[in-house]
Amino acid sequence: MFRQITIIGPGLLGASLAMAVRQNSSATKIVVWARSHQSREKCRHLNWCDDIFESPEKAVVDSDFVLLCTPVNVISSLLKTIKPALKTNTLVSDVGSTKRLICEKAQNLFKDTSAVFIGSHPMAGSEQAGMENARADLFKGAACMLTPMAGTAAEMTQLLNRFWESLGMRVSVFTPQTHDAIVAHVSHLPHVLASTLCKYLAEKDSNWQTLGGGGLRDTTRIAAGDPELWKQILEQNRNEILQAITGFERKLDELKIALTENKTEQILEFLEQGKIYRDQFQQG
Amino acid sequence: MFRQITIIGPGLLGASLAMAVRQNSSATKIVVWARSHQSREKCRHLNWCDDIFESPEKAVVDSDFVLLCTPVNVISSLLKTIKPALKTNTLVSDVGSTKRLICEKAQNLFKDTSAVFIGSHPMAGSEQAGMENARADLFKGAACMLTPMAGTAAEMTQLLNRFWESLGMRVSVFTPQTHDAIVAHVSHLPHVLASTLCKYLAEKDSNWQTLGGGGLRDTTRIAAGDPELWKQILEQNRNEILQAITGFERKLDELKIALTENKTEQILEFLEQGKIYRDQFQQG
Repeated sequence: MFRQITIIGPGLLGASLAMAVRQNSSATKIVVWARSHQSREKCRHLNWCDDIFESPEKAVVDSDFVLLCTPVNVISSLLKTIKPALKTNTLVSDVGSTKRLICEKAQNLFKDTSAVFIGSHPMAGSEQAGMENARADLFKGAACMLTPMAGTAAEMTQLLNRFWESLGMRVSVFTPQTHDAIVAHVSHLPHVLASTLCKYLAEKDSNWQTLGGGGLRDTTRIAAGDPELWKQILEQNRNEILQAITGFERKLDELKIALTENKTEQILEFLEQGKIYRDQFQQG
Repeated sequence: MFRQITIIGPGLLGASLAMAVRQNSSATKIVVWARSHQSREKCRHLNWCDDIFESPEKAVVDSDFVLLCTPVNVISSLLKTIKPALKTNTLVSDVGSTKRLICEKAQNLFKDTSAVFIGSHPMAGSEQAGMENARADLFKGAACMLTPMAGTAAEMTQLLNRFWESLGMRVSVFTPQTHDAIVAHVSHLPHVLASTLCKYLAEKDSNWQTLGGGGLRDTTRIAAGDPELWKQILEQNRNEILQAITGFERKLDELKIALTENKTEQILEFLEQGKIYRDQFQQG
């Protein structure tokens, strides 16, 4: 599919991607840039890394596909750094959890080059960060959202689509704005709730935690995610997340009122509708 | 440990208990009462059921330990039904998720008999209800809370303690009131949040759900629990749960304000403290 792919940032996502690309032969040669010397030394001996460079601009030379797998806050500055070194018509994408800010900056930056930036957001990951937790099947069966801009060439979007599909992902296309609204609800809001529940319970009697069952454990799993990464995501998608939180609070108020006013039928219906929604995961 | 145990209601918890009792030889004979004819027919052929009866009062005859594993709403009326049939000094317990109401009614009911009621709450279960999902290791390693009343004989609490420990549970003792406050936070609040998130998202674009990742899946798992059972739990523990929700809302407001006012250090600290709490599960 690609002759050479450059992966910028071989953390959990980047390293898993490299493994999956190797396994699925989605690119012939895999070139990597890692910020730390230590990570570069590790990569050198791994079968999914054909070449590794000390600077991102060197790592992208000759690649027809460049994929940024860094925290969202540094994507824009990295795009600026690699831009002069990109070859003609290179496809550039990222795996960041927010898209509007990143895509707007990229569009502006790339308007005078032949390189094309299209945002990607593979809905895969883990609260366990880092290369050591990477695995080739991380993306298999998961959703991936692409966010081309109004003027993006359709064949480049098609190419990116085929790439993610080659890793077994279910691809769909949205505007960056719509993407941000969706993930504010299905990804960022759940994270906010899990973190808030943990922060709240952390202030209670510390013995209470050991009394929790599997429910508390699962409900809070994602709160173990990297705080710095999630801070960046919350800030980059602030408005959409605030709206999602407000909508959730209204719904929680409905249940509180039903409970306070002893409206037993209404409580039951609320729980039933929640269950219907959740059961669709099992069927899906 | 016991000569004969009666399990009232062989659903997920009751049937798992019977399996665990058999496996750990915590009682010599296991006698069961199930409400439906169909369940009784199923039980008849299972190795953890030595005898099965058509009425609860017949099922408790000659048992030195009776364990009610029904929805919380019917526990009190079942206690009334079995009371005349209990033999001297029988230990009676339940596995309900709320304790204050149940224990108060039981104390009042049992004050003129030699039978002793002590509430139990094994923090084990699954969103998958029913006998067919039962398993002998459901309780292993999980917490179990006992709630004796002020006048309860210490040796009976000790006996109940040893029973749950024989199934591999970590037992602790609380007043029914303290129990209800704790579970409102570590169990009922997580359930309320999961259900509310599902109910909220159910009213959004139905395609959004397929875009969610493992985070949404795990955060909402318990919302698939039986709505009727959970309605009863929410109603029986109404005041404590309302307090827990209010406390959670205040914490969520803190994060909203920090996000609105761009207080980046405060957001980071909030997420970090949530992560510290969650990481304790891994260490524990």
